[in-house]
Amino acid sequence: MKVLTFGEMMLRLKTPNNERILQTQHFEASYGGAEANVAISLALLGNDVEYISKFPQNLLGSAAENTLKKYGVNTSKLLKGEGRLGTYYFEKGASLRSTNVIYDRKGSVLEQAKAEEFDWDTIFEDVDYFYFSGITPAISKEMQKACFMACEYCQKHDIPIVCDLNYRGKMWSSQEAQSVMTGVMKYVTICIAHDEDFEATLGIKAFDGDSSSGIEQKETFKSAMLAIKRKYPNVKMVASILRNIFSVEDSQWMGLLLKNNKFYETPIYDVHVMEGVAAGDAFGAGLLHGILHAYNAQKLISFALSASVLKLTITGDLNLVSEEEITAVMNSNTVSRLSR
Amino acid sequence: MKVLTFGEMMLRLKTPNNERILQTQHFEASYGGAEANVAISLALLGNDVEYISKFPQNLLGSAAENTLKKYGVNTSKLLKGEGRLGTYYFEKGASLRSTNVIYDRKGSVLEQAKAEEFDWDTIFEDVDYFYFSGITPAISKEMQKACFMACEYCQKHDIPIVCDLNYRGKMWSSQEAQSVMTGVMKYVTICIAHDEDFEATLGIKAFDGDSSSGIEQKETFKSAMLAIKRKYPNVKMVASILRNIFSVEDSQWMGLLLKNNKFYETPIYDVHVMEGVAAGDAFGAGLLHGILHAYNAQKLISFALSASVLKLTITGDLNLVSEEEITAVMNSNTVSRLSR
Amino acid sequence: MKVLTFGEMMLRLKTPNNERILQTQHFEASYGGAEANVAISLALLGNDVEYISKFPQNLLGSAAENTLKKYGVNTSKLLKGEGRLGTYYFEKGASLRSTNVIYDRKGSVLEQAKAEEFDWDTIFEDVDYFYFSGITPAISKEMQKACFMACEYCQKHDIPIVCDLNYRGKMWSSQEAQSVMTGVMKYVTICIAHDEDFEATLGIKAFDGDSSSGIEQKETFKSAMLAIKRKYPNVKMVASILRNIFSVEDSQWMGLLLKNNKFYETPIYDVHVMEGVAAGDAFGAGLLHGILHAYNAQKLISFALSASVLKLTITGDLNLVSEEEITAVMNSNTVSRLSR
Amino acid sequence: MKVLTFGEMMLRLKTPNNERILQTQHFEASYGGAEANVAISLALLGNDVEYISKFPQNLLGSAAENTLKKYGVNTSKLLKGEGRLGTYYFEKGASLRSTNVIYDRKGSVLEQAKAEEFDWDTIFEDVDYFYFSGITPAISKEMQKACFMACEYCQKHDIPIVCDLNYRGKMWSSQEAQSVMTGVMKYVTICIAHDEDFEATLGIKAFDGDSSSGIEQKETFKSAMLAIKRKYPNVKMVASILRNIFSVEDSQWMGLLLKNNKFYETPIYDVHVMEGVAAGDAFGAGLLHGILHAYNAQKLISFALSASVLKLTITGDLNLVSEEEITAVMNSNTVSRLSR
Amino acid sequence: MKVLTFGEMMLRLKTPNNERILQTQHFEASYGGAEANVAISLALLGNDVEYISKFPQNLLGSAAENTLKKYGVNTSKLLKGEGRLGTYYFEKGASLRSTNVIYDRKGSVLEQAKAEEFDWDTIFEDVDYFYFSGITPAISKEMQKACFMACEYCQKHDIPIVCDLNYRGKMWSSQEAQSVMTGVMKYVTICIAHDEDFEATLGIKAFDGDSSSGIEQKETFKSAMLAIKRKYPNVKMVASILRNIFSVEDSQWMGLLLKNNKFYETPIYDVHVMEGVAAGDAFGAGLLHGILHAYNAQKLISFALSASVLKLTITGDLNLVSEEEITAVMNSNTVSRLSR
Amino acid sequence: MKVLTFGEMMLRLKTPNNERILQTQHFEASYGGAEANVAISLALLGNDVEYISKFPQNLLGSAAENTLKKYGVNTSKLLKGEGRLGTYYFEKGASLRSTNVIYDRKGSVLEQAKAEEFDWDTIFEDVDYFYFSGITPAISKEMQKACFMACEYCQKHDIPIVCDLNYRGKMWSSQEAQSVMTGVMKYVTICIAHDEDFEATLGIKAFDGDSSSGIEQKETFKSAMLAIKRKYPNVKMVASILRNIFSVEDSQWMGLLLKNNKFYETPIYDVHVMEGVAAGDAFGAGLLHGILHAYNAQKLISFALSASVLKLTITGDLNLVSEEEITAVMNSNTVSRLSR
Repeated sequence: MKVLTFGEMMLRLKTPNNERILQTQHFEASYGGAEANVAISLALLGNDVEYISKFPQNLLGSAAENTLKKYGVNTSKLLKGEGRLGTYYFEKGASLRSTNVIYDRKGSVLEQAKAEEFDWDTIFEDVDYFYFSGITPAISKEMQKACFMACEYCQKHDIPIVCDLNYRGKMWSSQEAQSVMTGVMKYVTICIAHDEDFEATLGIKAFDGDSSSGIEQKETFKSAMLAIKRKYPNVKMVASILRNIFSVEDSQWMGLLLKNNKFYETPIYDVHVMEGVAAGDAFGAGLLHGILHAYNAQKLISFALSASVLKLTITGDLNLVSEEEITAVMNSNTVSRLSR
Repeated sequence: MKVLTFGEMMLRLKTPNNERILQTQHFEASYGGAEANVAISLALLGNDVEYISKFPQNLLGSAAENTLKKYGVNTSKLLKGEGRLGTYYFEKGASLRSTNVIYDRKGSVLEQAKAEEFDWDTIFEDVDYFYFSGITPAISKEMQKACFMACEYCQKHDIPIVCDLNYRGKMWSSQEAQSVMTGVMKYVTICIAHDEDFEATLGIKAFDGDSSSGIEQKETFKSAMLAIKRKYPNVKMVASILRNIFSVEDSQWMGLLLKNNKFYETPIYDVHVMEGVAAGDAFGAGLLHGILHAYNAQKLISFALSASVLKLTITGDLNLVSEEEITAVMNSNTVSRLSR
Repeated sequence: MKVLTFGEMMLRLKTPNNERILQTQHFEASYGGAEANVAISLALLGNDVEYISKFPQNLLGSAAENTLKKYGVNTSKLLKGEGRLGTYYFEKGASLRSTNVIYDRKGSVLEQAKAEEFDWDTIFEDVDYFYFSGITPAISKEMQKACFMACEYCQKHDIPIVCDLNYRGKMWSSQEAQSVMTGVMKYVTICIAHDEDFEATLGIKAFDGDSSSGIEQKETFKSAMLAIKRKYPNVKMVASILRNIFSVEDSQWMGLLLKNNKFYETPIYDVHVMEGVAAGDAFGAGLLHGILHAYNAQKLISFALSASVLKLTITGDLNLVSEEEITAVMNSNTVSRLSR
Repeated sequence: MKVLTFGEMMLRLKTPNNERILQTQHFEASYGGAEANVAISLALLGNDVEYISKFPQNLLGSAAENTLKKYGVNTSKLLKGEGRLGTYYFEKGASLRSTNVIYDRKGSVLEQAKAEEFDWDTIFEDVDYFYFSGITPAISKEMQKACFMACEYCQKHDIPIVCDLNYRGKMWSSQEAQSVMTGVMKYVTICIAHDEDFEATLGIKAFDGDSSSGIEQKETFKSAMLAIKRKYPNVKMVASILRNIFSVEDSQWMGLLLKNNKFYETPIYDVHVMEGVAAGDAFGAGLLHGILHAYNAQKLISFALSASVLKLTITGDLNLVSEEEITAVMNSNTVSRLSR
Repeated sequence: MKVLTFGEMMLRLKTPNNERILQTQHFEASYGGAEANVAISLALLGNDVEYISKFPQNLLGSAAENTLKKYGVNTSKLLKGEGRLGTYYFEKGASLRSTNVIYDRKGSVLEQAKAEEFDWDTIFEDVDYFYFSGITPAISKEMQKACFMACEYCQKHDIPIVCDLNYRGKMWSSQEAQSVMTGVMKYVTICIAHDEDFEATLGIKAFDGDSSSGIEQKETFKSAMLAIKRKYPNVKMVASILRNIFSVEDSQWMGLLLKNNKFYETPIYDVHVMEGVAAGDAFGAGLLHGILHAYNAQKLISFALSASVLKLTITGDLNLVSEEEITAVMNSNTVSRLSR
Repeated sequence: MKVLTFGEMMLRLKTPNNERILQTQHFEASYGGAEANVAISLALLGNDVEYISKFPQNLLGSAAENTLKKYGVNTSKLLKGEGRLGTYYFEKGASLRSTNVIYDRKGSVLEQAKAEEFDWDTIFEDVDYFYFSGITPAISKEMQKACFMACEYCQKHDIPIVCDLNYRGKMWSSQEAQSVMTGVMKYVTICIAHDEDFEATLGIKAFDGDSSSGIEQKETFKSAMLAIKRKYPNVKMVASILRNIFSVEDSQWMGLLLKNNKFYETPIYDVHVMEGVAAGDAFGAGLLHGILHAYNAQKLISFALSASVLKLTITGDLNLVSEEEITAVMNSNTVSRLSR
């Protein structure tokens, strides 16, 4: 079973420790992006994964590609060309001070690429599952076109599509997102959506915007998930993370899955958060891993949420955990003792 | 509207991460001091500020001055001369282990300076507000004299004085402090005092010394604040922070303001503390910023406390936050989600 | 009063900050080991301590020895020879992700040493107390022999033995451990045991394996402690730490001491943990320090537990605290304010 | 006497130590750019300087501006707007391996700016000297227009223009550069040119491209300098650095100045190079400082070259040296002993 | 064309900057080993390479494998098992102080492996060239056996063998080395030998041991190379690096190749050395790359030596350079200017 | 044979890498001082050494003392008291830019100490050699007194005195130095003097101040050494280092010894300097080590100079080398190859 993911990878520049950008003289460099993160998670869990994107033909592009290769993702079909690698600056918050992201991704080599550069016939060779998120079509009109071309290829060749709606308000407006994503949804087999994604990309309200009480809003999330299944009968599963975020460090997480008109839930996990990013990607990868290994619905959502929660304990975009570690968290709600 | 602050700036040498001085091979260097911190906060919030002090004529003095300039404080009137820059070593505690400060400030160029070196006529040109804290007169007899000269200038020229009583037990005894600060209080327009400051500098008891229950002692704080107003009718406002400090990381904070014989309070904030220093300076700057912009009493104390609480999330003496960030904390008691 | 401790010291290589081994390019190097940690704690508290072991005759061996000397431990009797220094890799967990230790200690110069290399007559000169833990006999058959030779020397010369059972499942099986440690116990004066140590080394069950509710199991701990005293009448005291571990960062700790058939307890401490290792060694050193200074039973267990809890706030194997700091924690359950 | 410099400032991301981009996980962040470097050098030497540019209205823009303020450059006239800050990656070479720069400056807020946004009447208030380099017009057609508008203003108001031809082959072709810079030269009072700048921007050959023998080509440099004076009679001085670059670390430097048809030379300096960038900016600033202080021609070129050579010993774009340090190098060709 | 290399990969722990092991608290971690270095160099130059070894089944083993994958080496045939990863400590010298290596490689999982674990039929599938060095048989008797089995496979299947004699005096004596390597030489097609390798492994003297005058001994090197060809007629080429090492930083390098009874030499390169290790591996990879691309003899030795010299400018075992960079050094004996 | 050294130890704060104080945010912390450096060198070479001084009773004082203990120096007689530890800031130069030291040592606990605090009867118990440098009497009048008291004790008890004249122009004038040191010289057995020390402390000219040609001035050095012996017949040996310092990195070193009216010289060593401080202390320790082990005059000066030259390759005040390493440098003028 082979998975293909399609998206943009960026250089991430993070201030060390707790420093603010105004005071720092150093950045920690790593490379990530939603679909690349999913690909790497899947590879670390032992799956066969291919990543498709366009990278600049310079050392930063090579460094990004090497990150994928290092963790076992197949990159042989990557496009390369003149241009820049998208960048983002990451300033971790603390307590009541929010985490801060500065996007510097405009004009990237992928944003400048044409849809036609992607030869889906070749790219989809041997692929069994296709994953992308709402970030990819948010990049440019051409990438929207590329997404639709890929979706049509999948539909024609019975390749199930996993799509994380992943709304990014700094990339497009809700209106633009809806005009595209409602079209995308007609192809999607498994839909992942969190918080404001429901409304911003599909116009279906699940969440009132109060991050400190997401879990309390479980019923509206359920209604929204049912609404998706009703509106897009091609969708076989809808999965979501619900959160109560109390501060940058403290939050509660749970997972919710709708499959065959039945809901499956995880327990609520109390988490001390190291870095609150890319947890949705870890969730998507966990879900897809479970699907590839035919987990039942309850195990599926439990594994996905456990993967997601573990990501919060790790620095960087990548969920550098093993299947054993995810399973340990899934099976126990306290930390296991140090084994010596 | 222009503010002048007067005090000492020091080189701060902090062990990295969680290291103790006994084990460290590195120090993080930054420059701070109560009145410099206030000046920088005010400048970062867009105000016109001048800082007056005496700095050594060496690279450390230049580095301190450059810190002020970097964040927009006017330093053109700084005195310079042969001597040393005061230094302090900062070893952050953890959980039940207290934070540790080693002062190495004796013999600094400011401590060695004469009161007469400060030409207040020139220094106060265009100044609308004067800020200093109880640390400045604690430095030396000459600095006490300088403070009184400055206060008299202000009284004569109707420049309101904001004074943070800021008791430092390692610099002078309570008895010495009282003999000076009760005199200073006759000139003060806005008085800031926390915890043991009331008693140590004015002989007015507000706080029983139990840091874990400062907020529970709100009524004795109120009595002390009223006592100040009664004793020093020139004082128009008294402001204070009340805290329940449970561990180095966990505490609760609230603000209290007495104005026109009425008390104004903020809600209680739960804070996960990064660095528990200079929060009082952030509070003073927030208060002064609100006064400069004619905030009403409730907004004044809320803004000041929010500024103070945000400081706790930042490493270093300086409250590197924007007005928007302070306002966000003031308006919500949960952290806002990461905006992407 | 002079203490001798006997064990192995290793190079500890820790990933910086929160990094996982898979992503790190740096290790923080320090040197530690249960009995060396105890020796250093005792020296830091002002006691006369000697450490005996065998170290490799290379720069890593010198660096380990220098660590002991730096903090005042006498190392003049250390054996040296060709071979390697045991090493271990330390990857700190976070929240629900467990801390991870990779032992690379096989083939160390101490493991390769012969029991006969230790000349106990000379080594025990002027020694008043002997301390070792269950790790030492777990190293090799020869070290088991060495331990027994040392124990017999002590018995013959009335030197009290303090033994921390310290079970290490990665070094030997419970069956092996029991076959040795039940023999060792016939010589022991003061016995320290935590959690699974009771059962794994002596076959006496105290703890059901659920780390999140150790304190709730106080009664079974008490029974186990009494069982030890019953079975080994030579044992004068049994001491233990009970813990509720909620996550890598959050836990509750209390101490329990059995002396003269009476139990002594400490209050429960809430701790925000920096590094959850070597706290048992800090406890053992605290206990021994108290014994050396004739503390009464209540003060003994309170001091030992306070030392242990302080260790949790410090990075590295060594409990770099002063007697004043331990006493402050012992006397108050909240952190003292920053003194400036 | 007040100087205005006009150009672009970028975030510079440098790999630490000797690391290559392919292996690094960290970048050292600083902010620089030819004309900003000149402004900061002049301010550090005690001169009154203003910097004009357009910066993004985000934390990176603020950090860049703070760098200027920190070292005393006036930034009150800076334009600000939505957009990105140009970035460049710096990988220091070693021995035979060349230093490597990756420009990521396209689409910067200055490149996107319109010429009309710069109100030269206001900007030039009180300005006595204008400095810019060939990089500014290389940014965009609009910046070319802005340069010409500034030049015309200067011509009309008798403000001397110092221009460093500063050819950047990664920004424009020699043909484009010539079409613009030959026009710019009609306004220039003092012209700085090195190596291939002569030919690439003016079509006047001075240098055969062999970096290891620049000094040996002194006569062709002289001819080129005379050719400039002949072709552009408005030019009062032409200054140039000649180099023999043997490796990344080892080189020889000398300065050459043409003034009133007479040549002035410095001795040849052997330099062990720390960072071979921004030395031309240090040279320009040294020259301009000398002009502002009416140095004679010989002292002018000696001071400028000494400033330039000192820059090679410093990490970062900024020449963080004092006038005393430059003078010491100017007066002696060996290093002075450590003064203690 | 596919290359297989066979050897051991180790964790390398290097003190940062110029620190000695006695003073350091940090190690920089990377992974390398002669044959892995060659494999990575070949992959970075665009060749198809497979690496065979046995790695421990733990995070350190994964980190080593990820290093290979990151740079494009195929690792699918790696053996894995319980055990430890060999380690070495690297303390860079300076000037007259020698660089210092502490091997801690005994008992590694590869040393403990059996020759039979390697199934050469499968391993050599599609392989066109086989590379290993004298380090592999120095590991253990079993690895000697494995080397001979591999050599016989190659002889039977006409796969040319490239062997770097690579004597390691800390691993085996000259006598042991000769007893094995003289046997190995009967299978070798291309032989690489430097300095004392000739004598220590084959008993053929080329070098008198004075590192400061290796180049002056060119004639004895030539005789030794001819002696090899005479004694082992299967050898088609012998290649060697000659060096004058003046200090840790300063040396001169040249290459020498014997092919078809003709000698080919490179010019002498003056190098400022960053890290004087793994340059021989870079040389071997450069040679093999040239052979794979049918370079003529002169270009072969020039390319190999240039690759080797570039390695000296890079930190870590890996020669992270591109073909363009090697070619640039090959074509010019001075560094090219910074291109901007 | 036991050596006592007497002086001041300071905290040394060094900017990392090549950073200037104006740009740094970090200092590397270590502890050193001429006589402490000598003591540590002697201990590292296996000698019995005691260090006497007065240290502050705080964590910085403990850290300084621990440094001595770590490397084996006996500190049991150290005085302790309230006060500060002297500090100095170290900014390493590069090429033509001089290294920069900022002393912040005034008001240290040793400067404030009284001569009477030192009980020489006790301190000198078992001492066979006494070492101090001209820095100790430069600290204060009281320390001058203490030095004279120690000298008289030595004279009375036949303890030879080794004195490094060590002139520090930032601590006292040449006139003050001469008035004290000419008195001290009446007690000295072995005198060490470099460069301007001769003239500044004794009024005997050896050196014309041109650091680039110290070796060329060998004859005037010899005359000065003879003049010392003539004037102070108690002096048995005079030793000196002669240097040609070409840049911060490049210099030539040689040693010169006068013993029994005969001169002994070393060859000239070319050194690439890492850190040009404390080399004189390494020289003194090497000399004293040789004396303790009865080296002949030629070996004495060769060993001392080799120790000194090795120090230049090490970061920090301490000469962390072994006797084997010194001997290797003494026996060969090229670096030995990496042994693996």
